[in-house]
Amino acid sequence: MTVDVEVWTDINCPFCYLGKARFEQALEGFAHRADVRVVHRSFELDPAVPAEESGSVVEHIAHKYGIPVAQAEANERGLGAQAAEAGLEYQTSGRDYGNSFDMHRILHLALEQGVQERVLDALYAANFADTAPLFGDRERLVEVAVGAGLAEADVRRVLDSDEYADAVRADEEQAAAFGASGVPFFVFDRRYAVSGAQPAEVFTDALERAWADAASSLQVVADGDACGPDGCAVPQR
Amino acid sequence: MTVDVEVWTDINCPFCYLGKARFEQALEGFAHRADVRVVHRSFELDPAVPAEESGSVVEHIAHKYGIPVAQAEANERGLGAQAAEAGLEYQTSGRDYGNSFDMHRILHLALEQGVQERVLDALYAANFADTAPLFGDRERLVEVAVGAGLAEADVRRVLDSDEYADAVRADEEQAAAFGASGVPFFVFDRRYAVSGAQPAEVFTDALERAWADAASSLQVVADGDACGPDGCAVPQR
Repeated sequence: MTVDVEVWTDINCPFCYLGKARFEQALEGFAHRADVRVVHRSFELDPAVPAEESGSVVEHIAHKYGIPVAQAEANERGLGAQAAEAGLEYQTSGRDYGNSFDMHRILHLALEQGVQERVLDALYAANFADTAPLFGDRERLVEVAVGAGLAEADVRRVLDSDEYADAVRADEEQAAAFGASGVPFFVFDRRYAVSGAQPAEVFTDALERAWADAASSLQVVADGDACGPDGCAVPQR
Repeated sequence: MTVDVEVWTDINCPFCYLGKARFEQALEGFAHRADVRVVHRSFELDPAVPAEESGSVVEHIAHKYGIPVAQAEANERGLGAQAAEAGLEYQTSGRDYGNSFDMHRILHLALEQGVQERVLDALYAANFADTAPLFGDRERLVEVAVGAGLAEADVRRVLDSDEYADAVRADEEQAAAFGASGVPFFVFDRRYAVSGAQPAEVFTDALERAWADAASSLQVVADGDACGPDGCAVPQR
Protein backbone atom coordinates (compact mmCIF):
# COMPACT_ATOMS: atom_id res chain seq x y z
CA MET A 1 0.00 0.00 0.00
CA THR A 2 1.38 3.38 -0.93
CA VAL A 3 0.48 7.05 -0.77
CA ASP A 4 1.50 9.09 -3.82
CA VAL A 5 2.36 12.69 -3.13
CA GLU A 6 2.78 15.09 -6.04
CA VAL A 7 4.29 18.48 -5.29
CA TRP A 8 3.87 21.28 -7.80
CA THR A 9 6.78 23.62 -7.30
CA ASP A 10 8.94 26.29 -8.87
CA ILE A 11 12.65 26.73 -8.23
CA ASN A 12 12.23 30.47 -7.69
CA CYS A 13 9.41 30.08 -5.17
CA PRO A 14 10.55 30.74 -1.58
CA PHE A 15 7.46 29.10 -0.12
CA CYS A 16 8.19 25.97 -2.17
CA TYR A 17 11.65 25.82 -0.62
CA LEU A 18 10.13 26.25 2.85
CA GLY A 19 7.22 23.93 2.15
CA LYS A 20 9.52 21.13 1.04
CA ALA A 21 11.41 21.27 4.35
CA ARG A 22 8.19 21.29 6.38
CA PHE A 23 6.69 18.45 4.36
CA GLU A 24 9.87 16.44 4.86
CA GLN A 25 9.68 17.07 8.59
CA ALA A 26 6.16 15.61 8.56
CA LEU A 27 7.28 12.68 6.40
CA GLU A 28 10.19 11.96 8.76
CA GLY A 29 7.74 11.43 11.60
CA PHE A 30 5.18 9.49 9.55
CA ALA A 31 4.96 5.83 10.51
CA HIS A 32 4.42 4.66 6.92
CA ARG A 33 7.04 6.92 5.35
CA ALA A 34 8.62 3.97 3.50
CA ASP A 35 5.34 3.65 1.59
CA VAL A 36 5.09 7.28 0.52
CA ARG A 37 6.22 8.08 -3.01
CA VAL A 38 6.98 11.74 -3.73
CA VAL A 39 7.19 13.24 -7.21
CA HIS A 40 7.87 16.91 -7.92
CA ARG A 41 5.89 18.51 -10.72
CA SER A 42 6.50 21.62 -12.79
CA PHE A 43 4.94 25.03 -12.25
CA GLU A 44 6.42 28.27 -13.61
CA LEU A 45 5.69 31.40 -11.62
CA ASP A 46 7.25 33.62 -14.26
CA PRO A 47 7.00 31.89 -17.64
CA ALA A 48 7.12 35.22 -19.52
CA VAL A 49 10.70 36.02 -18.49
CA PRO A 50 12.99 35.40 -21.50
CA ALA A 51 15.30 32.42 -21.10
CA GLU A 52 18.49 34.51 -21.14
CA GLU A 53 17.28 37.27 -18.82
CA SER A 54 18.33 37.56 -15.19
CA GLY A 55 18.89 40.25 -12.59
CA SER A 56 18.29 41.17 -8.97
CA VAL A 57 15.33 39.29 -7.55
CA VAL A 58 14.41 42.12 -5.19
CA GLU A 59 14.24 44.71 -7.98
CA HIS A 60 12.33 42.29 -10.20
CA ILE A 61 9.75 41.57 -7.49
CA ALA A 62 9.38 45.28 -6.68
CA HIS A 63 8.83 46.09 -10.35
CA LYS A 64 6.61 43.11 -11.12
CA TYR A 65 4.21 43.62 -8.23
CA GLY A 66 4.47 47.42 -8.02
CA ILE A 67 5.84 47.57 -4.48
CA PRO A 68 8.75 49.68 -3.18
CA VAL A 69 12.18 48.01 -3.31
CA ALA A 70 12.39 48.45 0.46
CA GLN A 71 9.23 46.36 0.87
CA ALA A 72 10.57 43.65 -1.42
CA GLU A 73 13.75 43.64 0.68
CA ALA A 74 11.71 43.36 3.87
CA ASN A 75 9.77 40.44 2.36
CA GLU A 76 13.06 38.70 1.66
CA ARG A 77 14.17 39.22 5.27
CA GLY A 78 10.85 37.83 6.48
CA LEU A 79 11.26 34.79 4.26
CA GLY A 80 14.84 34.43 5.49
CA ALA A 81 13.62 34.34 9.08
CA GLN A 82 11.06 31.65 8.27
CA ALA A 83 13.69 29.66 6.38
CA ALA A 84 16.04 29.84 9.38
CA GLU A 85 13.26 28.45 11.58
CA ALA A 86 12.95 25.53 9.16
CA GLY A 87 16.72 24.98 9.34
CA LEU A 88 17.34 26.29 5.82
CA GLU A 89 19.99 28.66 4.55
CA TYR A 90 18.55 31.71 2.81
CA GLN A 91 20.41 34.63 1.24
CA THR A 92 18.19 37.64 1.85
CA SER A 93 20.07 39.81 -0.64
CA GLY A 94 22.03 39.31 -3.82
CA ARG A 95 19.84 36.55 -5.29
CA ASP A 96 18.85 36.60 -8.97
CA TYR A 97 15.67 35.72 -10.86
CA GLY A 98 14.87 34.26 -14.25
CA ASN A 99 13.08 31.67 -16.32
CA SER A 100 12.87 28.18 -14.80
CA PHE A 101 11.59 26.20 -17.80
CA ASP A 102 14.90 24.42 -18.50
CA MET A 103 15.29 23.59 -14.82
CA HIS A 104 11.90 21.88 -14.89
CA ARG A 105 12.94 19.89 -17.96
CA ILE A 106 16.06 18.79 -16.07
CA LEU A 107 13.89 17.83 -13.07
CA HIS A 108 11.90 15.51 -15.37
CA LEU A 109 15.14 13.91 -16.55
CA ALA A 110 16.13 13.55 -12.89
CA LEU A 111 12.77 11.93 -12.09
CA GLU A 112 13.37 9.28 -14.74
CA GLN A 113 16.83 8.65 -13.39
CA GLY A 114 15.77 8.39 -9.76
CA VAL A 115 17.60 11.53 -8.55
CA GLN A 116 14.83 14.12 -8.63
CA GLU A 117 15.01 14.93 -4.90
CA ARG A 118 18.74 15.53 -5.08
CA VAL A 119 18.52 17.71 -8.17
CA LEU A 120 15.67 19.77 -6.75
CA ASP A 121 17.51 20.25 -3.46
CA ALA A 122 20.60 21.32 -5.38
CA LEU A 123 18.60 23.83 -7.45
CA TYR A 124 16.95 25.24 -4.34
CA ALA A 125 20.32 25.52 -2.62
CA ALA A 126 21.83 27.22 -5.67
CA ASN A 127 18.98 29.72 -5.73
CA PHE A 128 18.29 30.38 -2.07
CA ALA A 129 21.44 29.48 -0.13
CA ASP A 130 23.98 30.88 -2.60
CA THR A 131 24.28 34.30 -4.24
CA ALA A 132 26.25 33.09 -7.27
CA PRO A 133 24.13 33.78 -10.39
CA LEU A 134 21.92 30.84 -11.35
CA PHE A 135 19.26 31.94 -13.83
CA GLY A 136 19.91 32.42 -17.54
CA ASP A 137 23.27 30.68 -17.11
CA ARG A 138 23.34 27.35 -18.85
CA GLU A 139 26.78 26.31 -17.61
CA ARG A 140 25.76 26.93 -14.02
CA LEU A 141 22.66 24.77 -14.51
CA VAL A 142 24.81 21.98 -15.96
CA GLU A 143 27.17 22.27 -13.00
CA VAL A 144 24.36 22.08 -10.42
CA ALA A 145 22.60 19.17 -12.18
CA VAL A 146 25.82 17.17 -12.61
CA GLY A 147 26.80 17.91 -9.00
CA ALA A 148 23.49 16.34 -7.95
CA GLY A 149 24.10 13.10 -9.80
CA LEU A 150 23.05 13.51 -13.44
CA ALA A 151 25.42 12.61 -16.27
CA GLU A 152 26.73 15.70 -18.05
CA ALA A 153 26.00 14.23 -21.48
CA ASP A 154 22.34 13.65 -20.51
CA VAL A 155 21.96 17.18 -19.16
CA ARG A 156 23.47 18.73 -22.30
CA ARG A 157 21.37 16.52 -24.56
CA VAL A 158 18.19 17.72 -22.82
CA LEU A 159 19.27 21.38 -22.88
CA ASP A 160 20.18 21.10 -26.59
CA SER A 161 16.72 19.75 -27.43
CA ASP A 162 13.15 20.30 -26.35
CA GLU A 163 13.11 17.01 -24.44
CA TYR A 164 10.63 16.99 -21.52
CA ALA A 165 9.05 20.27 -22.68
CA ASP A 166 5.77 18.39 -23.11
CA ALA A 167 6.12 16.85 -19.66
CA VAL A 168 6.56 20.32 -18.11
CA ARG A 169 3.49 21.62 -19.92
CA ALA A 170 1.46 18.53 -18.98
CA ASP A 171 2.29 19.16 -15.32
CA GLU A 172 1.19 22.77 -15.67
CA GLU A 173 -2.06 21.76 -17.31
CA GLN A 174 -2.72 19.27 -14.53
CA ALA A 175 -2.12 21.99 -11.93
CA ALA A 176 -4.62 24.21 -13.72
CA ALA A 177 -7.11 21.32 -13.87
CA PHE A 178 -6.75 20.99 -10.10
CA GLY A 179 -7.42 24.70 -9.67
CA ALA A 180 -3.91 25.42 -8.38
CA SER A 181 -3.04 29.06 -9.00
CA GLY A 182 0.01 29.12 -6.77
CA VAL A 183 2.74 26.89 -5.41
CA PRO A 184 3.74 24.85 -3.53
CA PHE A 185 0.69 22.68 -4.18
CA PHE A 186 0.78 19.23 -2.59
CA VAL A 187 -1.60 16.53 -3.83
CA PHE A 188 -2.09 13.30 -1.89
CA ASP A 189 -3.30 10.31 -3.91
CA ARG A 190 -5.16 12.80 -6.08
CA ARG A 191 -7.75 13.05 -3.32
CA TYR A 192 -6.50 15.75 -0.98
CA ALA A 193 -4.58 18.92 -1.65
CA VAL A 194 -2.56 21.20 0.59
CA SER A 195 -1.77 24.61 -0.83
CA GLY A 196 1.16 26.59 0.49
CA ALA A 197 4.06 26.17 2.92
CA GLN A 198 1.92 24.86 5.74
CA PRO A 199 3.20 23.83 9.17
CA ALA A 200 4.44 20.24 9.35
CA GLU A 201 1.33 19.19 11.30
CA VAL A 202 -0.89 20.03 8.34
CA PHE A 203 1.18 17.73 6.13
CA THR A 204 1.05 15.04 8.81
CA ASP A 205 -2.75 15.26 8.84
CA ALA A 206 -2.92 14.99 5.04
CA LEU A 207 -0.57 11.98 5.03
CA GLU A 208 -2.63 10.26 7.71
CA ARG A 209 -5.88 10.96 5.92
CA ALA A 210 -4.54 9.61 2.61
CA TRP A 211 -3.13 6.54 4.37
CA ALA A 212 -6.43 5.81 6.09
CA ASP A 213 -8.22 6.06 2.74
CA ALA A 214 -5.72 3.76 1.07
CA ALA A 215 -6.07 1.26 3.91
CA SER A 216 -9.85 1.22 3.85
CA SER A 217 -11.17 -1.78 2.07
CA LEU A 218 -11.83 -1.72 -1.63
CA GLN A 219 -15.33 -1.58 -2.94
CA VAL A 220 -15.85 -4.81 -4.88
CA VAL A 221 -18.27 -3.87 -7.63
CA ALA A 222 -18.47 -7.29 -9.29
CA ASP A 223 -17.57 -10.80 -8.23
CA GLY A 224 -17.65 -13.88 -10.44
CA ASP A 225 -15.73 -16.52 -12.40
CA ALA A 226 -12.35 -16.70 -10.76
CA CYS A 227 -9.67 -19.29 -10.03
CA GLY A 228 -8.66 -19.72 -6.41
CA PRO A 229 -7.08 -22.27 -4.09
CA ASP A 230 -10.25 -24.36 -4.46
CA GLY A 231 -10.22 -24.46 -8.24
CA CYS A 232 -11.73 -22.43 -11.04
CA ALA A 233 -15.33 -21.39 -11.66
CA VAL A 234 -16.05 -21.19 -7.95
CA PRO A 235 -17.09 -17.73 -6.75
CA GLN A 236 -14.36 -16.85 -4.24
CA ARG A 237 -16.07 -14.40 -1.90
CA MET B 1 -5.66 12.55 -15.44
CA THR B 2 -5.20 8.83 -15.39
CA VAL B 3 -6.88 5.70 -14.12
CA ASP B 4 -4.53 3.04 -12.78
CA VAL B 5 -5.68 -0.52 -13.24
CA GLU B 6 -3.86 -3.32 -11.43
CA VAL B 7 -4.66 -6.87 -12.47
CA TRP B 8 -3.71 -9.71 -10.16
CA THR B 9 -3.27 -12.76 -12.33
CA ASP B 10 -1.66 -16.17 -12.65
CA ILE B 11 -0.36 -17.67 -15.87
CA ASN B 12 -2.10 -20.98 -15.18
CA CYS B 13 -5.49 -19.37 -14.50
CA PRO B 14 -7.95 -19.85 -17.38
CA PHE B 15 -10.26 -17.12 -16.09
CA CYS B 16 -7.32 -14.70 -16.02
CA TYR B 17 -6.68 -15.43 -19.71
CA LEU B 18 -10.38 -14.89 -20.45
CA GLY B 19 -10.68 -11.88 -18.17
CA LYS B 20 -7.75 -10.13 -19.83
CA ALA B 21 -9.45 -10.41 -23.23
CA ARG B 22 -12.76 -9.12 -21.88
CA PHE B 23 -11.10 -6.26 -20.01
CA GLU B 24 -9.22 -5.30 -23.19
CA GLN B 25 -12.48 -5.31 -25.11
CA ALA B 26 -13.88 -2.83 -22.57
CA LEU B 27 -10.72 -0.74 -22.71
CA GLU B 28 -10.84 -0.63 -26.50
CA GLY B 29 -14.24 1.04 -26.33
CA PHE B 30 -13.38 3.38 -23.44
CA ALA B 31 -13.19 7.04 -24.48
CA HIS B 32 -10.25 7.79 -22.17
CA ARG B 33 -8.29 4.63 -22.92
CA ALA B 34 -5.11 6.64 -23.60
CA ASP B 35 -5.21 7.70 -19.94
CA VAL B 36 -5.57 4.22 -18.48
CA ARG B 37 -2.40 2.61 -17.14
CA VAL B 38 -2.51 -1.16 -16.70
CA VAL B 39 -0.08 -3.12 -14.55
CA HIS B 40 -0.24 -6.88 -14.03
CA ARG B 41 0.50 -8.16 -10.53
CA SER B 42 1.55 -11.55 -9.25
CA PHE B 43 -0.70 -14.19 -7.72
CA GLU B 44 0.21 -17.89 -7.51
CA LEU B 45 -2.67 -20.34 -7.55
CA ASP B 46 -0.41 -23.27 -6.84
CA PRO B 47 2.66 -22.03 -4.95
CA ALA B 48 3.27 -25.43 -3.35
CA VAL B 49 4.09 -27.17 -6.63
CA PRO B 50 7.87 -27.73 -6.77
CA ALA B 51 9.66 -25.61 -9.39
CA GLU B 52 10.75 -28.59 -11.50
CA GLU B 53 7.45 -30.48 -11.40
CA SER B 54 5.03 -30.59 -14.32
CA GLY B 55 2.46 -32.93 -15.81
CA SER B 56 -1.02 -33.11 -17.30
CA VAL B 57 -3.15 -30.23 -16.12
CA VAL B 58 -6.35 -32.28 -16.27
CA GLU B 59 -4.97 -35.03 -14.03
CA HIS B 60 -3.48 -32.46 -11.66
CA ILE B 61 -6.80 -30.62 -11.34
CA ALA B 62 -8.72 -33.88 -10.85
CA HIS B 63 -6.32 -34.96 -8.11
CA LYS B 64 -5.99 -31.58 -6.43
CA TYR B 65 -9.72 -30.93 -6.17
CA GLY B 66 -10.83 -34.54 -5.82
CA ILE B 67 -12.99 -34.63 -8.94
CA PRO B 68 -13.12 -37.34 -11.64
CA VAL B 69 -10.73 -36.84 -14.57
CA ALA B 70 -13.77 -36.80 -16.85
CA GLN B 71 -15.14 -33.81 -14.97
CA ALA B 72 -11.81 -32.00 -15.17
CA GLU B 73 -11.82 -32.70 -18.92
CA ALA B 74 -15.36 -31.37 -19.21
CA ASN B 75 -14.32 -28.23 -17.33
CA GLU B 76 -11.52 -27.71 -19.82
CA ARG B 77 -13.96 -28.03 -22.73
CA GLY B 78 -16.28 -25.52 -21.05
CA LEU B 79 -13.41 -23.08 -20.62
CA GLY B 80 -12.40 -23.69 -24.23
CA ALA B 81 -15.89 -22.74 -25.39
CA GLN B 82 -15.81 -19.52 -23.37
CA ALA B 83 -12.33 -18.74 -24.71
CA ALA B 84 -13.55 -19.23 -28.27
CA GLU B 85 -16.36 -16.75 -27.64
CA ALA B 86 -13.75 -14.24 -26.50
CA GLY B 87 -11.74 -14.88 -29.67
CA LEU B 88 -8.98 -16.80 -27.88
CA GLU B 89 -7.25 -20.04 -28.82
CA TYR B 90 -7.52 -22.69 -26.09
CA GLN B 91 -6.14 -26.23 -26.11
CA THR B 92 -8.67 -28.30 -24.17
CA SER B 93 -6.34 -31.27 -23.83
CA GLY B 94 -2.63 -31.82 -23.59
CA ARG B 95 -1.79 -28.75 -21.50
CA ASP B 96 0.61 -28.97 -18.56
CA TYR B 97 0.69 -27.42 -15.09
CA GLY B 98 3.41 -26.26 -12.73
CA ASN B 99 4.88 -23.55 -10.56
CA SER B 100 4.60 -20.00 -11.92
CA PHE B 101 6.90 -18.15 -9.50
CA ASP B 102 9.71 -17.61 -12.02
CA MET B 103 7.21 -16.45 -14.64
CA HIS B 104 5.99 -13.78 -12.23
CA ARG B 105 9.58 -12.67 -11.62
CA ILE B 106 10.03 -12.36 -15.39
CA LEU B 107 6.78 -10.36 -15.59
CA HIS B 108 8.25 -7.88 -13.09
CA LEU B 109 11.37 -7.56 -15.25
CA ALA B 110 9.07 -7.02 -18.24
CA LEU B 111 7.14 -4.34 -16.34
CA GLU B 112 10.35 -2.41 -15.72
CA GLN B 113 11.28 -2.72 -19.37
CA GLY B 114 7.90 -1.64 -20.70
CA VAL B 115 6.98 -4.99 -22.30
CA GLN B 116 4.82 -6.57 -19.60
CA GLU B 117 1.70 -6.85 -21.79
CA ARG B 118 3.64 -8.61 -24.54
CA VAL B 119 5.34 -11.03 -22.16
CA LEU B 120 2.11 -11.88 -20.36
CA ASP B 121 0.29 -12.44 -23.66
CA ALA B 122 3.14 -14.69 -24.79
CA LEU B 123 3.01 -16.70 -21.56
CA TYR B 124 -0.76 -17.09 -21.81
CA ALA B 125 -0.44 -18.17 -25.43
CA ALA B 126 2.29 -20.66 -24.52
CA ASN B 127 0.11 -22.13 -21.78
CA PHE B 128 -3.37 -22.04 -23.28
CA ALA B 129 -3.00 -21.93 -27.07
CA ASP B 130 -0.11 -24.37 -27.36
CA THR B 131 0.36 -27.90 -26.01
CA ALA B 132 4.18 -27.80 -26.00
CA PRO B 133 5.35 -28.21 -22.38
CA LEU B 134 5.82 -24.88 -20.60
CA PHE B 135 6.08 -25.43 -16.86
CA GLY B 136 9.23 -26.57 -15.12
CA ASP B 137 11.17 -25.94 -18.33
CA ARG B 138 13.59 -23.08 -17.96
CA GLU B 139 14.70 -23.00 -21.61
CA ARG B 140 11.12 -22.77 -22.79
CA LEU B 141 10.51 -19.84 -20.43
CA VAL B 142 13.62 -18.09 -21.78
CA GLU B 143 12.40 -18.69 -25.34
CA VAL B 144 8.93 -17.28 -24.66
CA ALA B 145 10.27 -14.25 -22.77
CA VAL B 146 12.88 -13.43 -25.41
CA GLY B 147 10.31 -13.92 -28.16
CA ALA B 148 8.18 -11.29 -26.45
CA GLY B 149 10.92 -8.68 -26.42
CA LEU B 150 13.16 -9.24 -23.39
CA ALA B 151 16.93 -9.53 -23.74
CA GLU B 152 18.13 -13.08 -23.19
CA ALA B 153 20.92 -11.95 -20.86
CA ASP B 154 18.39 -10.12 -18.65
CA VAL B 155 16.08 -13.13 -18.51
CA ARG B 156 18.92 -15.49 -17.58
CA ARG B 157 20.27 -13.06 -14.99
CA VAL B 158 16.86 -12.96 -13.30
CA LEU B 159 16.40 -16.74 -13.45
CA ASP B 160 19.91 -17.28 -12.05
CA SER B 161 19.17 -15.04 -9.07
CA ASP B 162 16.26 -14.27 -6.76
CA GLU B 163 15.68 -10.91 -8.46
CA TYR B 164 12.06 -9.72 -8.20
CA ALA B 165 11.19 -12.47 -5.70
CA ASP B 166 10.37 -9.71 -3.19
CA ALA B 167 8.24 -7.92 -5.78
CA VAL B 168 6.21 -11.10 -6.41
CA ARG B 169 5.67 -11.60 -2.70
CA ALA B 170 4.76 -7.94 -2.19
CA ASP B 171 2.09 -8.29 -4.89
CA GLU B 172 0.72 -11.38 -3.18
CA GLU B 173 0.63 -9.63 0.19
CA GLN B 174 -1.20 -6.70 -1.37
CA ALA B 175 -3.76 -9.08 -2.88
CA ALA B 176 -4.30 -10.63 0.55
CA ALA B 177 -4.66 -7.15 2.08
CA PHE B 178 -7.36 -6.43 -0.48
CA GLY B 179 -9.13 -9.65 0.46
CA ALA B 180 -8.56 -11.25 -2.94
CA SER B 181 -8.66 -15.02 -2.61
CA GLY B 182 -8.87 -15.74 -6.33
CA VAL B 183 -7.86 -14.29 -9.68
CA PRO B 184 -8.24 -12.44 -11.93
CA PHE B 185 -8.69 -9.54 -9.53
CA PHE B 186 -8.88 -6.09 -11.14
CA VAL B 187 -8.36 -2.99 -9.01
CA PHE B 188 -9.20 0.47 -10.34
CA ASP B 189 -7.34 3.39 -8.74
CA ARG B 190 -7.31 1.31 -5.55
CA ARG B 191 -10.96 2.26 -5.07
CA TYR B 192 -12.97 -0.33 -6.95
CA ALA B 193 -12.36 -4.00 -7.52
CA VAL B 194 -13.76 -6.45 -10.04
CA SER B 195 -13.21 -10.10 -9.20
CA GLY B 196 -13.32 -12.69 -11.94
CA ALA B 197 -13.61 -12.87 -15.72
CA GLN B 198 -16.60 -10.57 -15.93
CA PRO B 199 -18.36 -9.53 -19.14
CA ALA B 200 -16.79 -6.51 -20.85
CA GLU B 201 -19.68 -4.26 -19.72
CA VAL B 202 -18.73 -4.77 -16.07
CA PHE B 203 -15.20 -3.57 -16.83
CA THR B 204 -16.60 -0.63 -18.77
CA ASP B 205 -18.69 0.37 -15.73
CA ALA B 206 -15.67 0.15 -13.44
CA LEU B 207 -13.53 2.22 -15.83
CA GLU B 208 -16.23 4.87 -16.06
CA ARG B 209 -16.72 4.99 -12.33
CA ALA B 210 -12.97 5.35 -11.68
CA TRP B 211 -12.71 8.03 -14.36
CA ALA B 212 -15.58 10.02 -12.86
CA ASP B 213 -13.93 9.87 -9.45
CA ALA B 214 -10.58 10.98 -10.85
CA ALA B 215 -12.25 13.88 -12.62
CA SER B 216 -14.07 15.11 -9.54
CA SER B 217 -12.32 18.02 -7.93
CA LEU B 218 -9.71 17.60 -5.24
CA GLN B 219 -10.53 18.32 -1.66
CA VAL B 220 -8.25 21.17 -0.56
CA VAL B 221 -7.64 20.52 3.12
CA ALA B 222 -5.37 23.51 3.79
CA ASP B 223 -4.61 26.72 1.96
CA GLY B 224 -1.95 29.24 2.90
CA ASP B 225 1.46 30.80 2.17
CA ALA B 226 2.00 30.25 -1.52
CA CYS B 227 3.64 32.04 -4.43
CA GLY B 228 1.46 32.81 -7.41
CA PRO B 229 1.26 35.13 -10.38
CA ASP B 230 0.55 37.97 -7.92
CA GLY B 231 3.55 37.35 -5.73
CA CYS B 232 4.31 35.40 -2.61
CA ALA B 233 2.63 35.37 0.78
CA VAL B 234 -0.78 36.04 -0.75
CA PRO B 235 -3.36 33.30 -0.17
CA GLN B 236 -4.18 32.18 -3.68
CA ARG B 237 -7.69 30.81 -3.36
